[in-house]
Amino acid sequence: MIVVVTPNPAVDVTYRVDEQRIGTTQRVRSVERRPGGKGLNVARVLAAEDVVTHSVLPLGGASGTWMVDAVAALGQPVTVVSVPGETRSTITVVDDLAHPTMFGEPGPDVPARTWLRVDEAVRAAVHAAPDADALVIAGSLPVGSPPDVVVPWITDALAAGALVVADLAGPALLAAADAGATICKPNRDELAEATGRTDERAGALDLLRRGAGTVVVSRGSAGIAAHTVDAVVEVPAVPGVTGNPTGAGDAATAGLVLALTRGTDIATALRTAAAFGAAAVLRPVAGEIDHDAAHRFTTDLETTRSHA
Amino acid sequence: MIVVVTPNPAVDVTYRVDEQRIGTTQRVRSVERRPGGKGLNVARVLAAEDVVTHSVLPLGGASGTWMVDAVAALGQPVTVVSVPGETRSTITVVDDLAHPTMFGEPGPDVPARTWLRVDEAVRAAVHAAPDADALVIAGSLPVGSPPDVVVPWITDALAAGALVVADLAGPALLAAADAGATICKPNRDELAEATGRTDERAGALDLLRRGAGTVVVSRGSAGIAAHTVDAVVEVPAVPGVTGNPTGAGDAATAGLVLALTRGTDIATALRTAAAFGAAAVLRPVAGEIDHDAAHRFTTDLETTRSHA
Repeated sequence: MIVVVTPNPAVDVTYRVDEQRIGTTQRVRSVERRPGGKGLNVARVLAAEDVVTHSVLPLGGASGTWMVDAVAALGQPVTVVSVPGETRSTITVVDDLAHPTMFGEPGPDVPARTWLRVDEAVRAAVHAAPDADALVIAGSLPVGSPPDVVVPWITDALAAGALVVADLAGPALLAAADAGATICKPNRDELAEATGRTDERAGALDLLRRGAGTVVVSRGSAGIAAHTVDAVVEVPAVPGVTGNPTGAGDAATAGLVLALTRGTDIATALRTAAAFGAAAVLRPVAGEIDHDAAHRFTTDLETTRSHA
Repeated sequence: MIVVVTPNPAVDVTYRVDEQRIGTTQRVRSVERRPGGKGLNVARVLAAEDVVTHSVLPLGGASGTWMVDAVAALGQPVTVVSVPGETRSTITVVDDLAHPTMFGEPGPDVPARTWLRVDEAVRAAVHAAPDADALVIAGSLPVGSPPDVVVPWITDALAAGALVVADLAGPALLAAADAGATICKPNRDELAEATGRTDERAGALDLLRRGAGTVVVSRGSAGIAAHTVDAVVEVPAVPGVTGNPTGAGDAATAGLVLALTRGTDIATALRTAAAFGAAAVLRPVAGEIDHDAAHRFTTDLETTRSHA
């Protein structure tokens, strides 16, 4: 069982309009609403692979209520922690003419006492039967939340014998490394931004020195790499895959944690991550992968190992 | 008591961003949510003038739930009719550089059986003690709703001795005229669009021939006029008022119905409407007026009457 925490879930709304134009009144032709946030995307991919997940979601207001209903429809265990204020929405405006425009709400102010209730929810989920094999923390924190709210989740999970995958950014990524997360999984930009290092290896070493077990860096079309103190293992991206890259990083996280909880080595886990990421690009929406393609891709990829 | 029907209420959301740019990801700096829809704006202005209103609102989904709570906070009687689907949102994106961009959702598909329940709610509100002096129907219908859903509301209210003010557009405006609404109150563009007549008098005569008692046409900065078969009464706009014109038409409707239910003649009612509209421009948000300005303006305006 894999516990998945989404610290700042969002209602992902897509508006289709005839033509995006600033300063006008635009009739929205169609509205789609989906439960969003990186952790929820990870949980959806895992659920589609028949892995039992337990999601922990701080939710509030009317959009929070909508999310509870939408997530319950996925048929997986969920613990909802009520937060004051309104769960954020992200609105993506699309037409057939220009790039999409995305408006991201900041998310609610989550007070310290609410984070204590999230701590309890994570602890309960990690210790619930069946034992948790892993804890995944994925996505941003609400604006204004202290980055170290993630620390007790990580220490509890590690103490319970679960591995921890932290797909975080900024100071929360550093806090996860400090807390000894088994895997810190930023993309290249997030790693550079959090550590202030433009060199990937240097940034990864910073996180390793802080306490991260392994630093997995997703490189988009340049593949994925795992850094430990004495080695770098690299897997290229699946070649020739085009489609919708939204959610590909989340699918990669799902592939990574799925492989690791099944006891594979890091090279196989990276191949699974790259394959799941590519298989997500083949699907039109985030949180889904092309199952057959994912398993075909996994066996096709080659791994390079270099000793540092 | 004034019954106010808002056939297609909306959550009015305002996003402030640093700079509107198509094709980018924009951080929303602040989010404001208000209950919206023309009828709700009318009801808010009336409530601020200490007039008892009874709102009838078809609402659905999570945004419907939010609306119920927000409208209940106004402390006026409300009948909510549950509709399947999600009450629409309108999102206005503002910065300090360009005109606002507005995205209007189409609203839910309201099935015929739900409109029957709205009929019952309007009938009950019109016949509730204290007797209804007026019925106001204001705003668009949800996309795809038949225009004649307004007809039973109007016939019931007229039969109960209430006057009916219909601030509608398109085929619903024609249906309201057919049903004998006491006042049809389009703006100039809506009148032209519904009747296909570019001449205001010709369009007004069309509605009068269909059965409207009086056609009141709001002309923005050119004032407001009341058409009957044999006369046109005109009142200029209050001069020199600048500010936020959103909701000015709804405040004018509130002023009009308030004056008429107090037994004034049409000239005084038009002056009140023009004054309320101008007093709304002085306030930053729709659904509010500057009370003192409204009453000062009312006495300052002159009326022109011409016989047709």
